[in-house]
Amino acid sequence: MQYNKNKNKEIIYTIDDLEIDIQLILNVIDERGATAIGLQFPEGLKRQAVNISRIIQQHRRVEVLISGNPCFGACDIDTRLIELTDVLFHFGHSSQGFCKEVVYVEARSKIDVAPVVARTIKMLSGKRIGIITTVQHVHKLQEIQDMLAAEGFECVIEEGDAHIAYPGQVLGCNFSAARGNCDEYIYVGGGEFHPTGASITTRKNIIIANPYNNSVYKINPEPLIRRRCAMIAKAFDAANFGIIVSTKIGQERLALAGALKRKIEEHNKNADLIIMDLVTPEQLLGFKLDAFVNTACPRIAIDDSKRFNIPVLTPVELEILIGEREWKEFAMDEILAGDR
Amino acid sequence: MQYNKNKNKEIIYTIDDLEIDIQLILNVIDERGATAIGLQFPEGLKRQAVNISRIIQQHRRVEVLISGNPCFGACDIDTRLIELTDVLFHFGHSSQGFCKEVVYVEARSKIDVAPVVARTIKMLSGKRIGIITTVQHVHKLQEIQDMLAAEGFECVIEEGDAHIAYPGQVLGCNFSAARGNCDEYIYVGGGEFHPTGASITTRKNIIIANPYNNSVYKINPEPLIRRRCAMIAKAFDAANFGIIVSTKIGQERLALAGALKRKIEEHNKNADLIIMDLVTPEQLLGFKLDAFVNTACPRIAIDDSKRFNIPVLTPVELEILIGEREWKEFAMDEILAGDR
Repeated sequence: MQYNKNKNKEIIYTIDDLEIDIQLILNVIDERGATAIGLQFPEGLKRQAVNISRIIQQHRRVEVLISGNPCFGACDIDTRLIELTDVLFHFGHSSQGFCKEVVYVEARSKIDVAPVVARTIKMLSGKRIGIITTVQHVHKLQEIQDMLAAEGFECVIEEGDAHIAYPGQVLGCNFSAARGNCDEYIYVGGGEFHPTGASITTRKNIIIANPYNNSVYKINPEPLIRRRCAMIAKAFDAANFGIIVSTKIGQERLALAGALKRKIEEHNKNADLIIMDLVTPEQLLGFKLDAFVNTACPRIAIDDSKRFNIPVLTPVELEILIGEREWKEFAMDEILAGDR
Repeated sequence: MQYNKNKNKEIIYTIDDLEIDIQLILNVIDERGATAIGLQFPEGLKRQAVNISRIIQQHRRVEVLISGNPCFGACDIDTRLIELTDVLFHFGHSSQGFCKEVVYVEARSKIDVAPVVARTIKMLSGKRIGIITTVQHVHKLQEIQDMLAAEGFECVIEEGDAHIAYPGQVLGCNFSAARGNCDEYIYVGGGEFHPTGASITTRKNIIIANPYNNSVYKINPEPLIRRRCAMIAKAFDAANFGIIVSTKIGQERLALAGALKRKIEEHNKNADLIIMDLVTPEQLLGFKLDAFVNTACPRIAIDDSKRFNIPVLTPVELEILIGEREWKEFAMDEILAGDR
């Protein structure tokens, strides 16, 4: 942890490669005359919560309430903390447009992406190159675009829908800034979930440029697709389905869940709607059901599949199961602007 | 599981020793013309949720939403489910007066308490005998009173405060129906938490009459008190405290938490307010703190103490730690009517 004023005398908090703009928080407190503020951190930043709270209180006389609830995205706003405070600061994610009153304090990565992007260039086969990334690196997109232009490529950075704060930004549940208006993509960032999802959604080449481990390779979505097809097959004999609905502000798709329930019942199987805030395997396995369909965070079915001992399908996968969609039309579950 | 109509043609659902009045639910649906209903079950009844949902739907044409959130008491109402439905049925607990619009579907135990109560009678040394129990057995209090009266005892069944639905009923967080207007108590029910708490609160003899394992003995509160004193001692060197506040409707004691924060700071230690819905050790250990003070469900500090690897104190225990209360004035943490 490092905590300093930069050359503009702004207060920046630095942890690992990430910079968090404390000055933004102080400015909002001043503008709004806030006396009680809420702080909400994603899991990866929770250990910084107390430090950041103390720094704010060294500079401003405010009561601070820290959210202790799990938080995995901007879909997941601590709405009770909005009611209890003058302003809620939500860290590490960009706005998805759900709560206009929340102030999003993004974290920007200082990591240099140029070396790894330079190595992707010799792997490109197309002419029009799309670039996608996560919020930590969106401020590097201009630099990447300039690098590609200097090599004679046409660079495409697409606008996403209303859930997406920055052109070129993708979320685990939203690839609307990767709609394929190009020959292939470079994904800049860590992890394989986002580029795999983008690959399945766009059906185009995605080349990963991972600045954390300096690796560059073309993503292969087939292993994920095969695992999901096996999960669908495992659910063939299920007679009693639970349809999971989260009440988190950006995940509640109750209308979709009701439609899925009717579809399941039309196929002479039972379905119950299970409403919850945080979705955990432990809570769901308390119900006596054969399989779940998840309408909450699309990553749950995929990331937590090993923690469930029964199949958990996405809405798309349920359609394949009941024969309303072809296997070859496998797609990622997304929560797009306007979905409910 | 057994499901039948009783002699009055009322629909009763029976599981183990418990009877749940389904007819009550059908009557409320009819009276209110409800078309969408919510069902919320405590952990011990979650496995019955789908069965009960199906039985209701066999008799009435309603959309059912089942709460999948953890639930440990009538303090813990799924408030979002109230908004999503015409009426929320909350099972297994009696009203604490927090949500007038919720319909509480209590579970009544059929177990015969007479044999075990008969055995307590020869252990009584006083004349005025108080009786306390949990909601599952409150319908047996008249029978117990008659048994004691027949043996010449004066029987006392005290009214609790506004959180307590029935005279003689105790909760893990509220012993207001055991204020000691008698020589000693009989506690009818399972478990040791309630009678231990009543013993510490009243400083009177409590004789357990447990109809589940047929055991009868005088509770000894000393082991719990000693464990808690050790926990207080373990927190002596803590410099950074987290004060846990739950946003659950019957657990939110934010004013108390603010007062505790100021007390801790007066002793030149740091304190941060951590706001959360469900309190779990896993979430709290993400923060870098030396000890917690818990203002949420009073049982958390005691029942979950082994799952935390740092001290978690009740508000009463914090007062002892900072020297504002004598060790000999150790008391249970309670959430009484009007507390906030």
